[in-house]
Amino acid sequence: MAISSLPCVQPVDILLDSIKWDDKGLAVAIAQNVDTGAILMQGFVNKDALATTITSRKATFFSRSGATLWTKGETSNNFINIYDMFVDCDRDSIIYLGKPDVPTCHTGLETCYFTSIGDLLKEQEVEETNLALTTLYSLESTISKRELELAGKHGKPSWTKRLLLDENLLCAKIRAEADELCRPLEEKEDSSCTASEMANVIYHAMVLLRHKDVKIENVLEVLRRRFSQSGIEEKQSRASTES
Amino acid sequence: MAISSLPCVQPVDILLDSIKWDDKGLAVAIAQNVDTGAILMQGFVNKDALATTITSRKATFFSRSGATLWTKGETSNNFINIYDMFVDCDRDSIIYLGKPDVPTCHTGLETCYFTSIGDLLKEQEVEETNLALTTLYSLESTISKRELELAGKHGKPSWTKRLLLDENLLCAKIRAEADELCRPLEEKEDSSCTASEMANVIYHAMVLLRHKDVKIENVLEVLRRRFSQSGIEEKQSRASTES
Repeated sequence: MAISSLPCVQPVDILLDSIKWDDKGLAVAIAQNVDTGAILMQGFVNKDALATTITSRKATFFSRSGATLWTKGETSNNFINIYDMFVDCDRDSIIYLGKPDVPTCHTGLETCYFTSIGDLLKEQEVEETNLALTTLYSLESTISKRELELAGKHGKPSWTKRLLLDENLLCAKIRAEADELCRPLEEKEDSSCTASEMANVIYHAMVLLRHKDVKIENVLEVLRRRFSQSGIEEKQSRASTES
Repeated sequence: MAISSLPCVQPVDILLDSIKWDDKGLAVAIAQNVDTGAILMQGFVNKDALATTITSRKATFFSRSGATLWTKGETSNNFINIYDMFVDCDRDSIIYLGKPDVPTCHTGLETCYFTSIGDLLKEQEVEETNLALTTLYSLESTISKRELELAGKHGKPSWTKRLLLDENLLCAKIRAEADELCRPLEEKEDSSCTASEMANVIYHAMVLLRHKDVKIENVLEVLRRRFSQSGIEEKQSRASTES
C-alpha cells in the first residue's frame, strides 16, 4: 500500500489537477486508522496540503481559520503516518489511510469523535466521552467494562465476567468454539451457522485478549505487517514444509 | 446505540445550534459502516439535513450543487440506516454511523473510495478499482484473490491456497492455533506472543470463512445483534447453566 518512490507516469501535478477543488480551492480529507478503521479526525486540504502529504507521508491539512498548511504533529512530533490515500468517485473527498503515533485528538482521546448525538438526545445523564466505535471495538469496550465491574458485587456475574475470572473455563470455551467452527466443514454438514460460530470464536478469544491486556488493534498490526510483507503465507508455508 | 425516542432534555434545536456551521451553513458528514468501519461516502449537511437524519434515521445530506436536501436512497429505496451520529471536538464534522441496504456508491461498489492515490502515482498499470480497505478487509481480499488463483498453475501454491484446497489441514490448523492461544494462559507462561497467536487464529479462521463464502461483515453483524441485545452474554450464560 506504500506510495512508490519510482518515477511517475502520472506526475503529482496531473493528479492534483484531477481533484475537484471547491470555490475556495479545498477538498475534504478524512484521516482513518488503517488497522481499526476508526475515523481519527477530518480536515480540509488545498493543493499544497495534499502535495505535502504525498511527499512527506505525514497527514497534512489546510487550516481554514489560520489560512496555513499544518502537518498534524508538527509541534508534538506525533504524526499520522500515511499508508495510502484514496479519492472518492466525485474527486472532492480524500481518505488519509494511516497510523497515528499517539491518540489523535488534542483531548488525548483516540479520535476527535467522542460525542454521541444519540446520547445528547437521551433523557438520562450520559457518559462524558463515548467514542464512535464500530462493532469489534464496541465489543472490546464492553468486555473491558465487564472487567471493571469485577470489583462490584451486584447479582449474578455476566458470562463475560465468569470467563474473565475462570481461565480454564475461558480456554475450554475457545477450544470448543474453534471445534464447532471446524466440524461442519469436516463432516460436510450444513454450514448455515458459520457466521455465528465465528462470532463465538472471536468473542471468546477477545475475552482472552482482555485478560492478557492485548488490544485487537495490536493483533491487526501483526496481521498487517505479516501480509504486507507476504510474511504470513511464507512463514506458514515454511513451517509446514519443515514439519 | 439507537437514538432514543424519549422526550429530550436537550431538544434537537439546542443540539443543532451547538454545531459550528460554516459560512454557508454547512458541516461535513461522513457515513461509516457500523460493522466494518468502512467510510461509505462523504457529503455535507445543513441544519435541516441533520434534523431530518435525526428524525428519519436515514442518512440525509445537503446537495451543494442542487441546493436541496437529499436522503441517500430516496429514489432507489436503498438507504443508509443510522445507528448513531457523532460530532467531533470542533463541532463541525459529523459521523453517520450506519448500515447501508446495498453497496453505497452509484458505481455499485461498496464505497465511493476506490481510487488509490498510491496506485495513481505508481509507474506500472494499476487495478481499476482498489477500495480503501483497512487491515481485516485487506486480508479478506487477499484470501479471495488466492482462491481465484487456484485455477492458475504457476509454481508452488501459497499457504493460503493449500489451506483452501485441504479442509482437513485447515481445520487442524484452526484447532492448533486456538490451542496455542490458550496454552500460555493455562500454564501461566510468558504471553508476549498473544497478539501473534490471535493473528494466527483470525487468519486461519478467515480462510475457513472464505471457504464457506461467509464475509467477516456477516460475522460482525451477528456480534452486533447479539451484544446490542445483551444477547451473547445471556445466551452463553444460559447454555453454561444448563450444561
